[in-house]
Order: sequence, then structure tokens, then C-alpha cells
Amino acid sequence: MTESLTASVVGASGFTGGELLRLLYGHPDFEIAQATSRSYGNKTVGSVHPNLRGMDLRFSDPEELESVDVLFACTPHGVSMEHIDSFRDAADTVVDLSADFRLDTESEYDEWYDGHERPELLAESEYALPELNRENLLDADLIASGGCNATAAILGLKPLFDADVLSGGERIVVDVKVGSSEGGAGGGEASSHPERSGVVRPYAPTGHRHEAEIEAFLGTQVSFSAHAVDMTRGAAATCHVYPDDPVSTADLWKAYRGSYADEPFVRIVAGGSGVYRYPEPKAVAGSNFAEVGFELDPRNGRIVVFSAIDNMMKGSAGQAVHAANVALGLEETAGLEFTGMHPVGAP
Amino acid sequence: MTESLTASVVGASGFTGGELLRLLYGHPDFEIAQATSRSYGNKTVGSVHPNLRGMDLRFSDPEELESVDVLFACTPHGVSMEHIDSFRDAADTVVDLSADFRLDTESEYDEWYDGHERPELLAESEYALPELNRENLLDADLIASGGCNATAAILGLKPLFDADVLSGGERIVVDVKVGSSEGGAGGGEASSHPERSGVVRPYAPTGHRHEAEIEAFLGTQVSFSAHAVDMTRGAAATCHVYPDDPVSTADLWKAYRGSYADEPFVRIVAGGSGVYRYPEPKAVAGSNFAEVGFELDPRNGRIVVFSAIDNMMKGSAGQAVHAANVALGLEETAGLEFTGMHPVGAP
Amino acid sequence: MTESLTASVVGASGFTGGELLRLLYGHPDFEIAQATSRSYGNKTVGSVHPNLRGMDLRFSDPEELESVDVLFACTPHGVSMEHIDSFRDAADTVVDLSADFRLDTESEYDEWYDGHERPELLAESEYALPELNRENLLDADLIASGGCNATAAILGLKPLFDADVLSGGERIVVDVKVGSSEGGAGGGEASSHPERSGVVRPYAPTGHRHEAEIEAFLGTQVSFSAHAVDMTRGAAATCHVYPDDPVSTADLWKAYRGSYADEPFVRIVAGGSGVYRYPEPKAVAGSNFAEVGFELDPRNGRIVVFSAIDNMMKGSAGQAVHAANVALGLEETAGLEFTGMHPVGAP
Amino acid sequence: MTESLTASVVGASGFTGGELLRLLYGHPDFEIAQATSRSYGNKTVGSVHPNLRGMDLRFSDPEELESVDVLFACTPHGVSMEHIDSFRDAADTVVDLSADFRLDTESEYDEWYDGHERPELLAESEYALPELNRENLLDADLIASGGCNATAAILGLKPLFDADVLSGGERIVVDVKVGSSEGGAGGGEASSHPERSGVVRPYAPTGHRHEAEIEAFLGTQVSFSAHAVDMTRGAAATCHVYPDDPVSTADLWKAYRGSYADEPFVRIVAGGSGVYRYPEPKAVAGSNFAEVGFELDPRNGRIVVFSAIDNMMKGSAGQAVHAANVALGLEETAGLEFTGMHPVGAP
Repeated sequence: MTESLTASVVGASGFTGGELLRLLYGHPDFEIAQATSRSYGNKTVGSVHPNLRGMDLRFSDPEELESVDVLFACTPHGVSMEHIDSFRDAADTVVDLSADFRLDTESEYDEWYDGHERPELLAESEYALPELNRENLLDADLIASGGCNATAAILGLKPLFDADVLSGGERIVVDVKVGSSEGGAGGGEASSHPERSGVVRPYAPTGHRHEAEIEAFLGTQVSFSAHAVDMTRGAAATCHVYPDDPVSTADLWKAYRGSYADEPFVRIVAGGSGVYRYPEPKAVAGSNFAEVGFELDPRNGRIVVFSAIDNMMKGSAGQAVHAANVALGLEETAGLEFTGMHPVGAP
Repeated sequence: MTESLTASVVGASGFTGGELLRLLYGHPDFEIAQATSRSYGNKTVGSVHPNLRGMDLRFSDPEELESVDVLFACTPHGVSMEHIDSFRDAADTVVDLSADFRLDTESEYDEWYDGHERPELLAESEYALPELNRENLLDADLIASGGCNATAAILGLKPLFDADVLSGGERIVVDVKVGSSEGGAGGGEASSHPERSGVVRPYAPTGHRHEAEIEAFLGTQVSFSAHAVDMTRGAAATCHVYPDDPVSTADLWKAYRGSYADEPFVRIVAGGSGVYRYPEPKAVAGSNFAEVGFELDPRNGRIVVFSAIDNMMKGSAGQAVHAANVALGLEETAGLEFTGMHPVGAP
Repeated sequence: MTESLTASVVGASGFTGGELLRLLYGHPDFEIAQATSRSYGNKTVGSVHPNLRGMDLRFSDPEELESVDVLFACTPHGVSMEHIDSFRDAADTVVDLSADFRLDTESEYDEWYDGHERPELLAESEYALPELNRENLLDADLIASGGCNATAAILGLKPLFDADVLSGGERIVVDVKVGSSEGGAGGGEASSHPERSGVVRPYAPTGHRHEAEIEAFLGTQVSFSAHAVDMTRGAAATCHVYPDDPVSTADLWKAYRGSYADEPFVRIVAGGSGVYRYPEPKAVAGSNFAEVGFELDPRNGRIVVFSAIDNMMKGSAGQAVHAANVALGLEETAGLEFTGMHPVGAP
Repeated sequence: MTESLTASVVGASGFTGGELLRLLYGHPDFEIAQATSRSYGNKTVGSVHPNLRGMDLRFSDPEELESVDVLFACTPHGVSMEHIDSFRDAADTVVDLSADFRLDTESEYDEWYDGHERPELLAESEYALPELNRENLLDADLIASGGCNATAAILGLKPLFDADVLSGGERIVVDVKVGSSEGGAGGGEASSHPERSGVVRPYAPTGHRHEAEIEAFLGTQVSFSAHAVDMTRGAAATCHVYPDDPVSTADLWKAYRGSYADEPFVRIVAGGSGVYRYPEPKAVAGSNFAEVGFELDPRNGRIVVFSAIDNMMKGSAGQAVHAANVALGLEETAGLEFTGMHPVGAP
């Protein structure tokens, strides 16, 4: 093995930061230089992330960044744009996991968010959803890792566009079900256990900001609605689409195999026997896998597309490591081999 | 109070039967005559339904039905049509909770199920969703209590048709999330706790039989898909519709208030502050309430309609008692006053 | 029916307050005069407690108490003692649900808590666990409703003392499992859904304040430990005791029947067939029932005692209404008839 | 790397078998030769274990065992003893995960189970709990991997004996909380999701067979009781012990550090700040780690000992691989590096 690359995690006490620490710790090519946290001073990372209790690493001050090969920014939306210069001073490659650099233009950003501090970087940064744009990531030095709900929706829908099943004018409903970790550590009343457990709760049922990413990537509008359900990890997208021309199940298999046959992290799951016939968040919990599948509804002229990821992994930390692997010319799957477990409860 | 009416529950060891026993036990006008079970012979009802451990009642033989005022049939689909003559011999009013008598014509039935044994009764029986057709139920003697998913979807969508927001030609996506009790007692591998907990699992994503009921009632096609999520009770429908003509939020309030302002069991929940802004199964768990709500998506020309019920109550046992109350001229809310709890976990 | 009595709930936006509103709303003898809340001003009670969305009642100012027959205080520990004079000015009967007046003497209080502001009231107030001391509650005007964990433990153990199976010198382990509602509304990081779901988490494993109540009531020391588990409602106590003299299962049945045969809210559950053979929180969720049971372990000379309640009901709001019913000479079960449901998820 | 060793899993369609496949698949020194299943014929392992959907491996016939270096038997209790000769013919090293060979003598076995078919092998087989007896496992050819509840209890209690805090005559209460995967795949009514979710359910509250293993290993009697709680994976033991002589917290730290300071899979967790202060199953889900901790209760002269494992890992598949690593002279941690996740729901 060659010499290790060094990596830092800024905002390492949050859920995404914790997962990055876990992944980097097990990654053959990275050595963790810093895990910063404003709140947890000099505490061990295991005092916040109990799965890492055995790890000999303490949180450090985000104001004193060391020079590293790659820096992962896990700060809340709006914070990365403020500190981006110091991040880029510290690291050759910056992977930002927030929404700050995901859109391409200031006008797009302003439509969904409030005023970007560094709009000139929007064009420079590369959106990362490696299955669909890995060629853009080679040697990229500012990477915006794709968002969880957007990743689920895009992975499910993109093959239909690539195979010309959809052309862009159709109405597309994206009905997403997500776990409580999407709200991040800390949480308020809505995410307290008594209020949050057992829910099917609509939130941001219209106008969700992830619509922006999806539309930017697919080049067409989608009708997005999210629901909180009782799991900790996971995002599952059910997309209801009505192609103009009839398609067969064979056409759909061809479309999805065409897009994903050689992808190391995508599994096509559509039918079969037994309990598990479609994509499910449980089946990918803890892993960087995405599952996509479909079912044809000839009676209604509809295709139902299913997509499932672990929002902490393929939807954030795993995707970020995957992107870094590509950008740095490493084995794409390095550090991301964990396959998930069976059985697993509410992942 | 006048003399009690007598009621029997056939198939009383199942989940729906248990809920009926609970409701009839607390009902001011009914006295339970029999609770039949093929499997649990002479055991106490509390040995199967632990909440009824204090009740002095034993399961009896379904072959020896007593004469009663009303008989509730909680048998699996296909069984009621076989025994319907003995049910009607035993009771002036039969409320069937299965799908056997929900559709109106044999051809409709054959499209979704396999061969009806007593097709001549399909026209005679009355479908019960009391909010929308209570006038049909007065003095009805064969009532088919509406199904859980269909009830959720119909209650959510009907006001849009009644207020001419929808006319019938539009595409309607009905994306339903349901609890594990829909599978009934017993269960197989798919509903074992290790496999079923924490899921977002598509099932019958196309061609679900409840489509038939919804379409029969609304007079238009719908694109229905169901997902199992981690709760025991509850059905939540999210309907995505695109009206031909633009509507305002005020129009929607007017439509829903027009349909439900005086309904004792329907709550309109759309917006507001705090944790609970939309319909949620948790908010109605254990009760006969249905919640309906909506959100306008001007960007996509979409209305998102939400509907939530307890599938064991408004979706089966509660609806059946409600229908019986109407049919027998009792107070509509009699025996159905329980308001649900807060907080409640996975209901 | 005679004229209604009036009742107020102080601190009505908390979980316990919400349950009291639900119970009083359905109670045949009470009319709700006020539901006070410092935080929710003039909002409807349904904006906080979604199960009460249909109720026409708004929170009012706790500084402006109306004169009522009974006032239920659901304020945090330490607040009742501060406001007790205004509570007693407003109401003939005050039922306090906090720990402020549960102990008998200032020295006991100081051992477990920090300084009582009104120690002279400790001797005057009556601890309420109606099954075991209802005679003290008749005409009581200051009632301290028993705590949840203490209620579970005491109901389980008391019959063994009453039947002389235990005499007081034995070691008694009380291993309790509780739901997240014990932490109250609001919650912090530890009770956020991602951290709290799926746990078996020791908390206050030694020195828990409920030890004080149990020991005061039973007159002997107990070794108490609590664990958070994944449910919202419920407290289950498993007590491990080693009697000096051997006992038989028949002796135990005699002891428990001797204590509880005529109790309307206690069910003895010990053995039998099927899924439900012992006390379980699920079986009593939403109800005022307590279940107690036992198993003999001859090999180890041990009795294992099980006890299960809904901490929001028999452990707080239900117990408080039960106590008020006794104090005011009403039917003991009035307003408390709900039997729970089957199935129910994480209650 | 040297040439791979070959490994087979007999009974690979069960939960434990699936976890073994996952571990062996990621193990640097093993190559999977066979995964047998009587029920799933020639199906892919991913059709049963959805996390392994990407794995190119099909179930094979258990009657046709290939010659391998190590065979893991994941068959139900009683099956291994029947087939043990064919297992040993096929493999130099057999690791049995059932209870068939855990006890040392026929008389012990007969006390807890019903008649052993091959009692002469009881003395020959080695019980595996590597932290406490790894020296016995070197070159062992018939290994009985320790049971889940026993492992949790023994790991928690053993240091107290080794440090002479306990001597063997004391009463020891072991109150265990376990997840639904302990019931295995398939399940019956008691483990169906509607009945099993949200439970605190005593089962085998006295006379549990794991008492035998614990007592055999510790050389003293324990009072064991198990409770089902709402998680899929995990076993947490709370042990209540009363030493004859007073001890300090420092004594306890010394005892536990003495036993586990150098153990790669044991974490001592006792106190500290934040949410996670004691052992929790969530913190080790998916990993081979065990957490042990303690709290002193001076008032009652009690030590409360906590222990938490993933019953599928440290309690079965992980322990079996650990034992095989020791027996075959491999790196002890090989294939067992996964650290668990944070957050994780009901693991």
C-alpha cells in the first residue's frame, strides 16, 4: 500500500460527521487528521458517537485546521460558504456535504434559499452523484455531495430519461419516506421520541428544497413530497410517472440495466419471490448501496419507480467518500465495502 | 335508556373482531350475544385479546349462531359470501367487514377477485362509508363496511369532486402507508417482527384490490400504491392531483368544509403551527376519527391531499359500528366517543 | 345525573395534562373549567394534543385561576409547592401529580430531593394509590397522586407483604423498563428520536428518587434500577425477591387474589397459554388498568413478580382521576372505562 | 496474503447463517465454499438475506457437503448432534452455533434439555467465549460457540469473580432484555409484528436454559429472567449482585480493567457525560463488540452490572468467527472490524 492520504472532518460531532469518521477509520487509504467540533472541545469522538468509543481521537478546534489532502465539511447549510476559503486553504480537495454548493447558478440558489455569500463558486463546484457524473469528479477540488432525497429520486428516475422512456414534459410525482436522522443531531420537539415515533407525518409537502437539486439534475420539474416515518436511517422514494408511449417490463429492465449494470453500489430489485421484492431502506442500512426498482401499471399507464438508500451513507457520508475516491483516483469502493445486515430493525 | 339490542361478532378472534368486541362492550345500546371463533373454542376472549382480559365472555361455535339484532361478520374475504344465508337467518341486520359485498356488480367483482358465489347480493348490499352515503344505510339489512385504504383515499378525494375541483378525467396518484395490522392476526414471514419492523416496503404497488372500491365510489380511475411502514395501526393516504383549472387554498378550505363541517368523525387539518399540521395516523389511533387535509403546490399545479385513519377503527370496526348505528337509528357516535391519546408511539 | 362538578388542569400542555383533559372530557361528572398553560397562551388544546383537535377549549393563564371543585396540578416537580396556596384557594380538592407532596416528612424529602418550601403540608397531604389506601382519600383535600414507577413496583410487591410472604428484611431487586413519555414533552438530546429509538438504556441505575416512595409505602428498602426501552407509554417492573420461607404457586395466587380480587383496575395475569401470559404494558396502553403477575423459581428460591401499567394513566392521569373519584364520592371507575386496544404497537 | 482457507455454512438461510455469510464474505482469510439450506434449494443467498443481494452465491444441499477447512453449523438445537459426524468428515474444524455441545457433561445436559444423542462429545468439545478461554480454542476441532444471553451475562459477571469481589455463594439476579431476532427466522404468532412490536414481555422468566451455560462457566447459580423488548438485534443484561464485603468504584474499575484492558472486542463503559454512559445494544449493533459497565449502589450494598452485545454478532456469528480465528491461528479481529453505526434505530 502507498502512503496514506490525510483527511479532516469539519463538524464531526453531527450524525454525518460521525459516519464519515467511521468510514475514514476503516478506509485503507486515509488517515484521519482532525475531527473538529465547536461544542465538544477536547472530548473523545466516542463520547458523542458511541460506536466509536474505542477510537483514540478527540475533537479539535475548527478554527485551527491542519493542512490535509481532503477535507470533508459536515457543517449546517450556510456555514460552508462562510468558511470555504479556510477549507480550501487547508485542503487540496474539499468535499462539502451541505447544500451550499449543489446548485449551479445564483438565480437557482435564490429561488430556493436565501442569498449565497459566494455565488461565484457555484459554477466552479462539482455536484457529486458518482454513478451519473463520475467523469466530472476526476481531479475536482470543490465537490458538493448530492443530498439524500435528491439522490434517491435521481437514481430512480435518471434511467428513464437516458432510455427515452421519459422526455421531460411528463408529470412526475416523487413521494419520499425518510427517517429521523435527516433532522440531524439535537432535534426539537417534533423529533422527540414520544412525538416522532410511529409517525407517518407529511413535512414540507410542497416546495421542498430538494426539488431544486432533482430538477437541476434531471432538467425537468418534479412534484416532490416528503413524509417522516418511523426509522432512524433511510430514504425511500416512490416515483409515479406516466410515459407518453407505452413501455414493457422488458423495456424497463433494459433501461435500468443500461444505467446500472456495472455500478458497484446500485442494485436493481424488481420482483422475484420472498419477502424482499423491491428496494427497501432496511436492505441497505449502514451501507453505501442504493436499490432501485420498478413496477408497471398498465391499467393506469403508469410506471412506479422505487428507490432506497441509507440517507447517512449513499445520501451523505458514503456518497462523499465515494466522490473523494473518484476525485483522488482511488479504488471507488475503498472503505465502502460494508454490505449491511439481516435482519435489522428500524435501521 | 331503552332495552339493549343484541349483537354478535363472527370471527371474533381476529384483530377486527377484537376491536368490535371492545366497541360493543362500551356501547350504550348493544349487548354482546356471541363472539364466535373456530380456533379458540371455549376460551375467554381475553386469552386472545389481552386488553379484554377482564371481560367475562368466551368464544363460541360459529356453527351455532343465536338470533340477534345485528351480526358483524369479521371473517376473511370469501367466507362471508359462503355463510351469508346463515348470517341473515340469525340477524335482521348483517354488517360484513370483508370485501365480499363491497362492489356493485359481478363484472366489477370478477375484474379484481375470483368468482363471486352470490353475485345477486352485490346489488342488494349497501357499501358503508357513512359520511358520504349515510342515507343509503337507513334500514339497510346487508351492509358492506368500506375498506381501510379505500376509506382513507375516498374521504380525502371526495370533496374535490363534490366541489368540482376535479371532474374525473385527471390523473390521481394515491400513495398509501399502512401499519402491520392490515395483514391480520397470524401473519407469515413477511410480517414477523425482525422482517417487518422499520420497513418502508412496497406491496401490491400496482393492481391493489382497493383500487376497485375507490374507483367505484369516485367514478374515476386512480393510481394506487401501498407501502408497509413501521406502525401497527393506521393508514395514511397521500393523494397527488392536478386540477385542470387553478384553485386557491381558500377554494380548498371551502370544498372540505362543505363536505365535512358537520361530520362528527372528520377533522380537517391543514397547516397551523406546532408539530401537528397535517393528518397523522398517530392523532387518531384507537379512535373512529378521520383526518383530512391538503396543501397547494402552485409551482407544479398540484394539490397534495392527506388523509389518516386508524385502519382498525375508521377503517373497519369503528366504521362498521358507525354504519350499524345509522342503520338501526341510534345516535351516530354511540360507542365511538374515544378520542385517542397523546402521546402515543407506533399506534 | 346530578349537576356536574367543575375541574381545572394546571399545566395542561404537558403530556400528563393532555391525558387529564382527555379523561375529564369523557368523564360523566366533570366539566372542564380551565386548562392552563404558560407557553401556549390562547391556543386551542388541540394544537398541542392532536387527539383533542376537535375539542372547543383554549389554554388559559395559570395566574388567573377560577374557582372549581377540583384542581389537578400537572406542573413540574417543585412548582406545586410554590403555588399550592393559590391552588387551594381556587379548589376544594387539589390533586397534585408531581412528587412535591408524596413523602410524609421533611427529613425523608431532604434525603432524596433539595429542600421543601412547605414542609408542613407533607403530613397533611394524602398519598394516593387507591387500591391500597382508598380509605385515606375520602374527603381528602390535598392529594399526592402516586408516581408511575413507584405505582408499578408497589402494586406488584404489596400483596407479598400483606400475605406475610415477605417480612421486610429481604433483598428486593426492582428492575423497571419505561417508555419515553416519562421524560415529558420537550425532551433533550437523549430523548431525540434517533438517539432514543430502539434503546435498552440504563438511567439512574442507582439512587432513583422513586425508591423513596416505594420504601415509604412498603416500609422496607428496595434496590431499584430503571431502563429506557423503545415504547412511548408504559412502565413494567420486574421484581426479584427471595422469601425466607418456601412458598407455592398456590400461595402466591392466594396472596394476589386476596389483595386484588375485587379491584376494578387490577388484573392478575400469571401463566396460561397463548402469546400473553404475563403483565405487559401493551395490554393496558391507554387504560387505567394495572396488571400484576408472578412466577416461582424453586431452583433459586426466588419469586419473580411482574407489574405493568400505562405510566400516563395508572401512573399519573388515570390514578389522579381515580383518586378524585374516591375523594369526591363518585363512582370509582367513572371516566376510566377505556379498556385499551389490541393490537397496539409501541404504545 | 497466503492462500485462503475454505469455509462452509450449514443452515445458511437462518439469521445466524446470513450473518456468517456476511462476515466470511468480508473476511480476508476465508473463501465461502458452501451455504446450505434445506428450504431454499438453488436460490441466491440474496433472495433470503437482502443485504447480500449482490453476492454471487446460491444455497446448496446440506446432504452434499464439500471438504473444507472450517464448517459453521447454524442448525437448530438438536440437529448438530445428529449430523456431527458428517460435519467432522467434511471439515477439520467444526464450529457449532447451537446449544448442542455447550455443556460439559451428560448429566448437566439432561438437567436442562432432553437426552443427548452423542454425549461422549460433550467433554471433547470446547465452549467458546474467546475473551475468557481463548487458550482452550487453539487447535480445537469441535467448538461450541457461546450463547447470546449467556455471553452477555458471563462477560459482565466474570471480572467480579476473577477479582474476588464475588466468591460464588451470593445471590445474583440476571435480568436480560433481548431483541426479536433471538426467535430466529420464521416466527409464529408471538413474533408477528403487531404482537411483538412495542413489547416488554417476560418469557421463560424462570428456568431459562441459558442459566445452565452461565452457571457452568461461573461455577455458581444465577437467577436468570429474560424479557422481549422492541428491537431486532441486541441482548442487554443487567446483573444485580450483593458482595459480602464492601467495594469501591475504584475496585470495580480495577476488576474490569484487569479482565478486559487488552481485549479487542470489549469496551468498559461506566459513567461519563452525554447520552451514552452505560453499555447499550445500539452502540454495538452489527459489530462484534461487547460493552460492560457497572454502577455502585452503596445504600443497598449492591453492584449493578450492565452488559450489551449484538446477539447476532458477539452472541453468535461474530463469536463463532472469533473462535475460528483463534482456533486456526489467524488474526483474532480478522473479518470483525466493523464498528457499528451512529445513529441507529432499533438495531
